[in-house]
Amino acid sequence: MTTITIVGSGNVAHHLAQAILSLESNAFVLKQIVARNKSNWTIHHSQLQVADQWENLSPTDWVFICVKDEAIHEVSKQIPWKNALLLHTSGSTSVDVISAEQRGVWYPLQTFSKSTPVKWKEIPIALEVNDSGNLAKLLELANLLSDHVAVLSYEQRLRLHLAAVFSCNFVNHLYHISDQLLQKEQLSFEWLLPLIKATTEKLQYVSPKEAQTGPAVRNDSNTINKQLAQLPEKEREIYQLLTNSIQQYHLKNE
Amino acid sequence: MTTITIVGSGNVAHHLAQAILSLESNAFVLKQIVARNKSNWTIHHSQLQVADQWENLSPTDWVFICVKDEAIHEVSKQIPWKNALLLHTSGSTSVDVISAEQRGVWYPLQTFSKSTPVKWKEIPIALEVNDSGNLAKLLELANLLSDHVAVLSYEQRLRLHLAAVFSCNFVNHLYHISDQLLQKEQLSFEWLLPLIKATTEKLQYVSPKEAQTGPAVRNDSNTINKQLAQLPEKEREIYQLLTNSIQQYHLKNE
Repeated sequence: MTTITIVGSGNVAHHLAQAILSLESNAFVLKQIVARNKSNWTIHHSQLQVADQWENLSPTDWVFICVKDEAIHEVSKQIPWKNALLLHTSGSTSVDVISAEQRGVWYPLQTFSKSTPVKWKEIPIALEVNDSGNLAKLLELANLLSDHVAVLSYEQRLRLHLAAVFSCNFVNHLYHISDQLLQKEQLSFEWLLPLIKATTEKLQYVSPKEAQTGPAVRNDSNTINKQLAQLPEKEREIYQLLTNSIQQYHLKNE
Repeated sequence: MTTITIVGSGNVAHHLAQAILSLESNAFVLKQIVARNKSNWTIHHSQLQVADQWENLSPTDWVFICVKDEAIHEVSKQIPWKNALLLHTSGSTSVDVISAEQRGVWYPLQTFSKSTPVKWKEIPIALEVNDSGNLAKLLELANLLSDHVAVLSYEQRLRLHLAAVFSCNFVNHLYHISDQLLQKEQLSFEWLLPLIKATTEKLQYVSPKEAQTGPAVRNDSNTINKQLAQLPEKEREIYQLLTNSIQQYHLKNE
C-alpha cells in the first residue's frame, strides 16, 4: 500500500484527490490534504484528514505538490518527511526545484475546472523521476487512472506544455475573437459550434496539415483582402500574421 | 414540385446533391448536374442527368451555382433560363453578382471534403433572396435539411464567414504549429487530442471569454518568457501577438 498526501486546494488538487479516492484498488490510499486555507477544500471522505499545517501529521509515502509553479520550491522545503517521494504537477517546471532526495513530476495534460468533471482515462500523463526506483509504482498509479501514460524528459514536457498553449489557450482566444466579431452583427456564437466540432473531429482522420482549408491555403487574395478590410486594427494584425504563416507552412512543406 | 439543377462538381456540389437526393419528400427533385468536366462527377442516380453544356437541357425551377466565387458571375450569365431562381453558395459574395432577375444565396457554414460524410441537420444555412416571393420555398428545403436555418443580410453573412476563418482555418493552423513543435521533440500530435476535445466541449457550457485559461490570461510572465525563448522567430511572433491580444481582451472587458 502506498499512502499519499496532496498539498493544495486548487483544480488539480481536487481532481487528483477525487480520482485517487475513486480507485477500486486499495494499493494507493489518499490520507491527507494540506491546504493553507482549509475551507477551500470541498471533498470529504471518512479516511481523509484535512490540515493547514504539517505538524502532527503522519508521514506518507508520496506527496503531490499541487500549487502554483513559483511556490513549488518553498512548499517542498516545508515538508518534514525525509523518506517521502515528492511530486509536482507542473508542465513548465524542472523536477529539480523540488527540495528532496526523491522527487518526480506527474503532469496531467488537461484544462481543469472544479465544476467540470474530467475523464481521467483520456488525459495524457507525463511522468519524470530523479530515481528510477520510484518509477514502477508511479507508473502503476498513472496507468490505473489513464490510458495515456509516458515517461518524458523535461525538454519533452516543456514542449508539450508549449504546444498545449497553442492548441488550447490560443485556440480558445480565436473563439473569443470570433464571438466578438459576430456580436457586432447581432449573431450568436452558436452559429460556429457545428463548424468548430467538425474542425476538431477531422483531426481523428487526417493531420492538421492535410486538414487545412480556407482563403490563406488556397491563396485566394480576393477574399483575404476583403476580410482584412472588415477587421479592426489588432484583429487585422492577427489575421495577416496567421495568413502569412499558413502560406509559409504550406509552401515550405511542399 | 420544385425541380433543381446544380452547377459544379466540387465538394459543395457533391454534398448538396447527395442531400437533395436523400430527401424522403418529393417536393424537391434534383434533375441535372452541369459540370465542365463530367468525369469529376461521382454520384449516380436514375433520375439524374449529368451534362457538360446547357444546350438541350430542360429548364428547372432553381439552379444552385456551386463554383468558385470568382466564376459565379460568368456562370450565371450562361444559364439560358429566364424564369429560374439562381442561387450561389458563397460566404463572401454578394447576391448581386448573379446575373438573373431572381437570385439568392444558400450558404452552408461548414468545411466540406468529398470523403467525409456531413451531418446536414447540424450545419447552419444562411439564406438571402432578392425577391421575397422565393423565400418560403427556399426555407422549406433548408429546413428539411438542417435544424439551423436563418435569413441573413450580406453584412451578416460576410461576418459569419470572417468568424469561420478565425474559428476553423486559423484554429487548424495553430494545431499545425503545435504538431511541428511536438515533432521536434519526437512527440506525437495524439498527445494533444484529449485537450483539444475538452477545449471545444467546454464551449457548450461557457462562453469563450469564461473558458480562457493559460499563462497569458493569468499574466504568468515567468512562463510566458520561458515559452517565448523556446520558439523559432515566426512562431514567437504569433505567440507574442496572441498573448498581447488575450491580455487586452481580458483587460478591456473587465
